[in-house]
Amino acid sequence: MSQSPKDIAIVGSGLVGSLLAIYLRKEGHKVTVFDRRPDIRTVEFSGRSINLAMSNRGWNALKQVGLEDEIKKIAIPLYQRAMHVDGVPLYFQKYGKEEEAIWSTSRGLLNRKMIDLAEAEGTEFRFSEKVWDVDLPEAKIFTGESEKGVWEEYKFDCVFGCDGAFSRVRHKMQRRSGFDYSQKFIKVGYKELSILPNEDGTHKLDKHSFHIWPRGKFMLIAMPNIDGSFTCTLFMPFEGDTSFESINTKEQAREFFSTHFPNVMPDLDNLIGDFFKNPTSAMVTMKCFPWTYWDKAALVGDSAHAIVPFYGQGMNAGFEDIFILTNMLEKYPDNWTLAFEEYQKERKPNADAIAELSYRNFVEMSSKTADPLFLLQKKIEKKFAAAYPEKWLPVYSRVTFSNRPYAEALALGDKQEAIMQQIMKLPNIEKDWDSDVIMQKIIELL
Amino acid sequence: MSQSPKDIAIVGSGLVGSLLAIYLRKEGHKVTVFDRRPDIRTVEFSGRSINLAMSNRGWNALKQVGLEDEIKKIAIPLYQRAMHVDGVPLYFQKYGKEEEAIWSTSRGLLNRKMIDLAEAEGTEFRFSEKVWDVDLPEAKIFTGESEKGVWEEYKFDCVFGCDGAFSRVRHKMQRRSGFDYSQKFIKVGYKELSILPNEDGTHKLDKHSFHIWPRGKFMLIAMPNIDGSFTCTLFMPFEGDTSFESINTKEQAREFFSTHFPNVMPDLDNLIGDFFKNPTSAMVTMKCFPWTYWDKAALVGDSAHAIVPFYGQGMNAGFEDIFILTNMLEKYPDNWTLAFEEYQKERKPNADAIAELSYRNFVEMSSKTADPLFLLQKKIEKKFAAAYPEKWLPVYSRVTFSNRPYAEALALGDKQEAIMQQIMKLPNIEKDWDSDVIMQKIIELL
Repeated sequence: MSQSPKDIAIVGSGLVGSLLAIYLRKEGHKVTVFDRRPDIRTVEFSGRSINLAMSNRGWNALKQVGLEDEIKKIAIPLYQRAMHVDGVPLYFQKYGKEEEAIWSTSRGLLNRKMIDLAEAEGTEFRFSEKVWDVDLPEAKIFTGESEKGVWEEYKFDCVFGCDGAFSRVRHKMQRRSGFDYSQKFIKVGYKELSILPNEDGTHKLDKHSFHIWPRGKFMLIAMPNIDGSFTCTLFMPFEGDTSFESINTKEQAREFFSTHFPNVMPDLDNLIGDFFKNPTSAMVTMKCFPWTYWDKAALVGDSAHAIVPFYGQGMNAGFEDIFILTNMLEKYPDNWTLAFEEYQKERKPNADAIAELSYRNFVEMSSKTADPLFLLQKKIEKKFAAAYPEKWLPVYSRVTFSNRPYAEALALGDKQEAIMQQIMKLPNIEKDWDSDVIMQKIIELL
Repeated sequence: MSQSPKDIAIVGSGLVGSLLAIYLRKEGHKVTVFDRRPDIRTVEFSGRSINLAMSNRGWNALKQVGLEDEIKKIAIPLYQRAMHVDGVPLYFQKYGKEEEAIWSTSRGLLNRKMIDLAEAEGTEFRFSEKVWDVDLPEAKIFTGESEKGVWEEYKFDCVFGCDGAFSRVRHKMQRRSGFDYSQKFIKVGYKELSILPNEDGTHKLDKHSFHIWPRGKFMLIAMPNIDGSFTCTLFMPFEGDTSFESINTKEQAREFFSTHFPNVMPDLDNLIGDFFKNPTSAMVTMKCFPWTYWDKAALVGDSAHAIVPFYGQGMNAGFEDIFILTNMLEKYPDNWTLAFEEYQKERKPNADAIAELSYRNFVEMSSKTADPLFLLQKKIEKKFAAAYPEKWLPVYSRVTFSNRPYAEALALGDKQEAIMQQIMKLPNIEKDWDSDVIMQKIIELL
């Protein structure tokens, strides 16, 4: 640590905010974290969270501060997708090679743990303190009970906005000329539901699988928790024939679940209870640029690039931001302006790429995973990748099990898709897909 | 007028706000216009305006309230572009058919006039009163000296946001879930400059032309005023080799103008004075949706769709919004919710189309207008359009001299461009462009 210690504010005590606090504390900086919500360790979880899937990029950032083992204690490895396709017996799709897994963990549990760890490192947390304004050139933040009320002013050396998709720090940047910004909602919402443990505390479904019930326009997923339960997420259009808007009574909900998800029937009453208890949440893709202001402010995680959750990369991308950002701070310890510049230059194209990949997965998971031709294409790809692993790394693996830039994964995926489009057009592909001719043809096209 | 009179607030006393006020007053509604700035009739102009080019859509909206003749008194018809291309003698390009013209008018003069007219119709104007917040479901607005200070609350039946690209009304809508929004700046800025009249009060350049000095990465334009002067606009990158950033001294400015714009030399000192006196402004494309909230609020003009100024359609599009909106209000006098729905459904695709066309014109005007092949293409198109006017309406004419939807113009343009791409690839096109074979070929492709 060659830099001189700074007095740093982090806005947001979520996963990204608390991990960044740990990093900065380890580098010797003074760190104060502000959050408008109360301490998550003292309140019930919100019932509006999708379980997290920690993968390589997330672990990579945790490893750097020695937290990998600690966090693995509250996570369960998932080695495969369990596909509950309508009218087809349950089948499984491996995620990667033998040992490759994504790790299911509850956002609430993980967040509590991370705050504990950040606090143990000497971070000061100021919960239930609402940030209303930020003076960017002065790195001042202003907090208070209400926007119109009396404000307290704090002066720092630098402010990090880790305050999520609707970031207050970014909100201030956004009023400046030259700030590019977009937010785009999808017409699908989600709702958290749960499947309770068996009476003996074991899981009701295979606990090392990511369970998916693809139903065309809507989809249910389930991820295991360490207490034997599953956190489920129902993705469904807000409006239309089968939609959140169309299910208003317990009878309608019972009809809906029993028609479309018969194998979760034992938990029907619990699901229906959750359905009416938990809120329906929206999903947004948010892009912006720049992410930084001199050496005074920087956006990290969702505040810089909120994405839809269909690649399981939201937290991983945020943690990777921290990995890259802190590498830049180490590289240019005496010039944070330059470090911030390099950070955003490096991360922006990759954030755009994972936004695009996540959006495509939304389309793929909700509709294509039940399409026989698409499944055949995936089967051919899988066979080829197994036979020629050095020639064909699946995009999912590149995103999930490597540290190579997201933008590379996107480019690789486009190239592979173009090849597969040609392969799928071959006559008799449905009959011949398993033949060596097809394998050779792919090699030719590569 | 079958509807019952409403109590209406308009935020913004610009061109769109004041024209909408006139419409609504003529329909018998009570209208109060708020503007955070002082009365434009009592202050000097800002020196940051591009002259306006009123064309068909603008006149159409003015005609509906009987203001066409009044406004023509402060406008000058321009029948052609005057092209000041480097190293080429001055030449002219007609805009359309004989009588077709765009009308140059000063934004400040026009705005003053419109406010006079709105006031004469009984509109109440509240200048220098800053709107800080809007309660959308209640149609309340809150004003005060400062965001943190004491606010006055006003209750209306409906609030119209005519407060421009950085609209406060839209800002409130934007915080709602499901609101799509984007703002994207171009890397080019602009600065207002002026060419003074001759001593006898006449214009120094042809007064019925829109003057353009295309210079690749930058460009100067000039539009006449009724007092004999020209309002010029210099478009240039903010940063880089030849940029606003790179010109910091009077010597550098003198060098810049005399090198690139030798025929405006007599006005050099005046231009240099303006260059350092006037601000450099940014240009943004802003898109959003929805534009309306129940029957309580609606965005009109730049607040709903800010565009770059390179098609001269910003004000025209805003005025056409009013034309469509008020037609819908007449069609559904007792159901403003439906009227607003229909208004935004009708206008959104057209606003997107003129945004795209304007952005393309930015590329075309700054670089392609000096490209011989592009000019040849335009020459062929012009010849064909003259020979077969029923088969080929230039996009510019469709946008500027018709009331057909902008989206149609964009689609038409794409189709024509695809045809011309094929034509321009014909061997010897540079030699044979004038031949009947080419004309026949276009007919085949149509």
